Amino acid sequence: MTSTSSFITSIATSSLIFFALFLVFLFCSRRKGNRPVYYPAILLDRRAPSDSKSPGGVIRSPWTSMKESWNASEDELVGIAGLDAAVYVYFLKTALKIIFWTSCFCLPVLIPIAATDNNLQSQDQSSAGNSSRLDTISMGNVQNNSARLWAFLIGGYWLSFVTYYILRQAYRHVIELRARDQHQARARPEQFTCIVRDIPPPAENESREEQVHSFFQQLHPETYEKSLIVTGQGKASKVWAEMESAHGNLAKAQAMLEQSKSEEASEGVRPQNRTGKFGLYGEKVDSIDYWSEKIKELTPKLTEEQNRAATEKQKGAAIIFFNNRRAAAEAGQEHHSLFADKWQVLPAPDPRALVWDNIGVSFPQRVVREIVVYVITFFTVVFYMIPIGFVAALTTLENLTEYLPFLNAIVDIPVVGAVIEAYLPQLALILFLALLPKLLLALSKQEGLIFQGHVVRAASGKMYYFVVFNVFLGVTLFGTLFNSADSIKELTRAQTFSFNSLVNLFGERLPPNATYFITYITLKGFVGFGLELSRVVPLIMFHLKKRFRCKTEKEVQDAWAPRSFKYIPSVPNDLLVITITLAYAVIAPLILPFGLIYFGVGWFVQRNQAQRVYVPEYETGGRMWPHIHSRILVGLFVSQITMLGYFGLKKFPYVFLLLPLPFITLLFARICRKVYYPAFKYVTIAVVSEGDNEVPPLSSAVAAFTPTCLLEGANEVKFNNKYDGSLQDAESQLPSSESPGTAAAAA
Amino acid sequence: MTSTSSFITSIATSSLIFFALFLVFLFCSRRKGNRPVYYPAILLDRRAPSDSKSPGGVIRSPWTSMKESWNASEDELVGIAGLDAAVYVYFLKTALKIIFWTSCFCLPVLIPIAATDNNLQSQDQSSAGNSSRLDTISMGNVQNNSARLWAFLIGGYWLSFVTYYILRQAYRHVIELRARDQHQARARPEQFTCIVRDIPPPAENESREEQVHSFFQQLHPETYEKSLIVTGQGKASKVWAEMESAHGNLAKAQAMLEQSKSEEASEGVRPQNRTGKFGLYGEKVDSIDYWSEKIKELTPKLTEEQNRAATEKQKGAAIIFFNNRRAAAEAGQEHHSLFADKWQVLPAPDPRALVWDNIGVSFPQRVVREIVVYVITFFTVVFYMIPIGFVAALTTLENLTEYLPFLNAIVDIPVVGAVIEAYLPQLALILFLALLPKLLLALSKQEGLIFQGHVVRAASGKMYYFVVFNVFLGVTLFGTLFNSADSIKELTRAQTFSFNSLVNLFGERLPPNATYFITYITLKGFVGFGLELSRVVPLIMFHLKKRFRCKTEKEVQDAWAPRSFKYIPSVPNDLLVITITLAYAVIAPLILPFGLIYFGVGWFVQRNQAQRVYVPEYETGGRMWPHIHSRILVGLFVSQITMLGYFGLKKFPYVFLLLPLPFITLLFARICRKVYYPAFKYVTIAVVSEGDNEVPPLSSAVAAFTPTCLLEGANEVKFNNKYDGSLQDAESQLPSSESPGTAAAAA
Repeated sequence: MTSTSSFITSIATSSLIFFALFLVFLFCSRRKGNRPVYYPAILLDRRAPSDSKSPGGVIRSPWTSMKESWNASEDELVGIAGLDAAVYVYFLKTALKIIFWTSCFCLPVLIPIAATDNNLQSQDQSSAGNSSRLDTISMGNVQNNSARLWAFLIGGYWLSFVTYYILRQAYRHVIELRARDQHQARARPEQFTCIVRDIPPPAENESREEQVHSFFQQLHPETYEKSLIVTGQGKASKVWAEMESAHGNLAKAQAMLEQSKSEEASEGVRPQNRTGKFGLYGEKVDSIDYWSEKIKELTPKLTEEQNRAATEKQKGAAIIFFNNRRAAAEAGQEHHSLFADKWQVLPAPDPRALVWDNIGVSFPQRVVREIVVYVITFFTVVFYMIPIGFVAALTTLENLTEYLPFLNAIVDIPVVGAVIEAYLPQLALILFLALLPKLLLALSKQEGLIFQGHVVRAASGKMYYFVVFNVFLGVTLFGTLFNSADSIKELTRAQTFSFNSLVNLFGERLPPNATYFITYITLKGFVGFGLELSRVVPLIMFHLKKRFRCKTEKEVQDAWAPRSFKYIPSVPNDLLVITITLAYAVIAPLILPFGLIYFGVGWFVQRNQAQRVYVPEYETGGRMWPHIHSRILVGLFVSQITMLGYFGLKKFPYVFLLLPLPFITLLFARICRKVYYPAFKYVTIAVVSEGDNEVPPLSSAVAAFTPTCLLEGANEVKFNNKYDGSLQDAESQLPSSESPGTAAAAA
Repeated sequence: MTSTSSFITSIATSSLIFFALFLVFLFCSRRKGNRPVYYPAILLDRRAPSDSKSPGGVIRSPWTSMKESWNASEDELVGIAGLDAAVYVYFLKTALKIIFWTSCFCLPVLIPIAATDNNLQSQDQSSAGNSSRLDTISMGNVQNNSARLWAFLIGGYWLSFVTYYILRQAYRHVIELRARDQHQARARPEQFTCIVRDIPPPAENESREEQVHSFFQQLHPETYEKSLIVTGQGKASKVWAEMESAHGNLAKAQAMLEQSKSEEASEGVRPQNRTGKFGLYGEKVDSIDYWSEKIKELTPKLTEEQNRAATEKQKGAAIIFFNNRRAAAEAGQEHHSLFADKWQVLPAPDPRALVWDNIGVSFPQRVVREIVVYVITFFTVVFYMIPIGFVAALTTLENLTEYLPFLNAIVDIPVVGAVIEAYLPQLALILFLALLPKLLLALSKQEGLIFQGHVVRAASGKMYYFVVFNVFLGVTLFGTLFNSADSIKELTRAQTFSFNSLVNLFGERLPPNATYFITYITLKGFVGFGLELSRVVPLIMFHLKKRFRCKTEKEVQDAWAPRSFKYIPSVPNDLLVITITLAYAVIAPLILPFGLIYFGVGWFVQRNQAQRVYVPEYETGGRMWPHIHSRILVGLFVSQITMLGYFGLKKFPYVFLLLPLPFITLLFARICRKVYYPAFKYVTIAVVSEGDNEVPPLSSAVAAFTPTCLLEGANEVKFNNKYDGSLQDAESQLPSSESPGTAAAAA
């Protein structure tokens, strides 16, 4: 596909870009003004105890800081960055391990065996083909039915068992990490809480509160404390957002007034704004007066909307609180109703991860939504290929210069031409894929999932299948340039669409694309992780915002406030890389060092970022791991099928010896699911029974599980008062149906 | 396949046989001496309160008794025959309902539509074929691409939705039956008990008893009562069996002595026997002395073996007892260990249903055994076909008379010839299948399943796939006579083996076999249920045994002692009938009345037998239902695929409208599994929390969960004594490692 020279150019350029970005990092992160960009997580952490300390006081040079994060133990990493980030970093390490141990056999054994044969040479002589030198160190250079193929067959087994062994070890390790994390004495509100879905309609003379209360009071008389009916937020959420923005604008206007004071006149210039949308049109008014007035107006409106939400928008779902961890863990894994579509009790997630809109979605609706989303996903996965093929066809150099003749001047410089030729298709792919995550997240949310972490995993799963189908198979089976129509026809002709023809197609089409994927991996790794480390984009954004928009301290903070890892494009992309690497590991072992570099750099960079940059939005307790585990196994499975096909093409009579491998993979996946998955689905009672049972005040748990727009403002005080009363006599006091406000909180 | 005349002969003969068997039942069941054969369950029930009453005193005429069992409500049925038998009877009723409601559309609408078309006639004229008159009322008689096919398409939807609706209703009904049964005040030992498997090896200075005790003591401090380590039975079981037989022989010898006394001399003749195997050779000895001696000899040996079993043969499994139902139900659905292959806690089954040999089988071994059993099952299912095809080829009349010329004389009588021709292939099939259940039960036991009910279900599932593959598909796809080789070749040629070609084959081959299967169903129904009702075989066996072998009262009792339903050939066979009926319901609606008769007669007969004849060996709490439910859905799925294929052959352009049906079936199966299955897997805590919590003495639960050979004999007293002591201070007293005997019972 790609010629040797453009291959080397591509690799060299990627390395250069990485080197440049690394220098940017070294240079920029030294400067004190950039510290909020490079060390936001540390700054945030430090600000918690004392607000006064100047940011970045104790932060040392980038080298020291890198050494520090390198030396941090995994438990420290969990403590600093949270379990989810630690699991993500551990995934990169696991991938690195798998590729390293695979390389130990494949590089020193298979490459010499391939290089000393001469299949391609003899083919070239007979058919005037021109295979590049890179292809001579892959399995394609071994002659048909040669005894050398035994080494590659052993390579297949080596690869598979290395993967099984390391994955098993890794799953056990993550389970133990998770257990240690749950076992901590530090109590979290979700440990005492369960979510109840699909509550049947209450009896006629019974309120929701009474219904839920009496149900759990009867089943858990000693441990059940309190329930909170989930209510729709209605307009309260909108009013709340308006209020927040009014507060922000008021603070900004005051800050502008202060600034103008110190600079020119002692009175200062009172800022003004227009009342229309985005302040673009309408009457000019005094900002401070306008926003103060607005806040006064909104306050009673918010209260009213809160009351209305609590009384009118009740949904068939509730949050229930227990007085100890064990009881909540037990309730979350027990069946409370004969029919599982009623009174479904689930362990509560991190309260920040609740998708409030979806909690009230009923069971039949969830079924329908799931089907609709799956169908849409299926079509997205299959038919996104068409525009990608179109883009790939467009972005060949000849096409581009034809459509955009002014490019000729640039392309004529030989180096530039080679670089563009090497990168264009990959860049097109990467840009195209950048649009996808948001679409998939929105789709997954529509499924009716109630935990944000689950939404992210569902979207990540969809994206993995998308990239495997479109990037990996799309590029290989249907070719980068437009010879796709034939393959599709061949594949989908009803008569021949069978498992066998699929295996053959894998075997035929994958191997020639090895060099293409090596450049793809290198580009993704060096440029992606280079950008990640150097944080060029956030750096520019921060300085732009700081200079032109931020007036108040809070706005500056918002400008550098750390985000969490973006698991959705990261995880499926990393999974794609390991899938590609595993698929080619035996057929074209040259890919292995590049896989090593990708995950080595990735591990190093992300470990650093986890400690210095990112702060989790919410915790899922490492639930990403089973997802990652099974996707790596999918990659291995694809790899085994590819090998079967390719060995078949090589007319190797002992190819049937590879046949057990896919079955072993399926079996391994099944055993892992049976043995390890329950530890992620449920809280093991051995874990919650041990150790100190610190119990936090119930009110804090209730507050954590109330949506912000319903909690704060005027109602906050009322709510807490009401609560403290009901805490003491939670069991004797039944909710009175006239209690208004956030009365969803049934005693 | 079968001509119209032999078809009618076959149906008529089957009906005659049923009528004759019914007369046998009416005649024989009236006679007092036969009552132990026809009403054993009632006799057994009556014997429980008072042993003295003469058997069968209050039993009225067969008509009255049939009316009585007809009038019994379902709850009464559960009370008399147990939940499992009630669920089996309910399955027959459900099948009847499905077929009835399907008939409501298919018979009055589809048959006239088919009968008034003339496809077959025109085909016959053009190709000189000879289709029988029966075929003219099936879909085959509708012309290609005729508008009449719309009615059949609607029939497909009608059939599917009738099945979904009735199955949903039935699942809910069975769940409620099960809940009522569990909710009963009558406490059963298994409600307070859990089984623990896969216990890791104990620490070096710790005994198994201490390990298990401290683990559960820590996790369930308030509800855990006691544990019993499972021990291998070793030789104890063998010695126990010898002892039992010695006791039996002694009693028999004494009875013989008594008999001889009364008849001839006052001294009587002391019976003698030979000491060799089966009393066939060896020295002649006085029986009474010999067996008394033997018992004396065996008693200390049994004690010794019991002690050895308890101390030396401990397995990594235990039975644990709780002090209330709720705690046991909770423990049975909680995850006790981080890794699910350790400390697996399961709800205990009926103690009589425990497969003691398998409890100690470790997790990795179970995985291996499962794979091996599945592979063997696969080959059994696929390659049993070969001998069946062979038998089918042999048993055509021409072949038989060729090989066995003396048959000619009989066959020459026209009626006999027709009967033999109609029945031979079916009889061959039925005989062949009779060998199977034992093989499959043995195979399923080897999987390492620890509940007998589970073993039966696993064997039944295997047998279902066997009969569907071999009887249903084997007969249809590969033809009754030897044109099989072509089809197999066609199906397995690698290039064309695909879903599409399978659908085509279904469509091509199934329809012509409708009449064959009508005779098959009629024969199975009339003869099978006729034999069941008339109990001819048990009647003859009972009288033979009573006359020639039974000397003591106990032996007579053993001779008529009622068994439980034989679910393993019954359930898969009934499932095959409903699969066949569903598959042909739309294509050849004539099959529907015969399906109605099969399940009508079956329901009537088995309801009767459940109340008068069979007594459950153990209870599984209706766990057969999910198994039955999903197999009926498999039948529906096969039916939908067949329709797709056949509509395709008819060149009906709107065949794609049938395409959603198989997907709806898959979706329906998935939803049912999610919503209804948990009620069978776990005990819902709403069910165990309500109602009286009668707690039986712990000792009775412990005795129920000790294998007989380890429980009785000399050790019984010791065991109970030890137990009563530990009951009071179960929590304070740790087991001392020197406690011998069945000391597996750790306090």
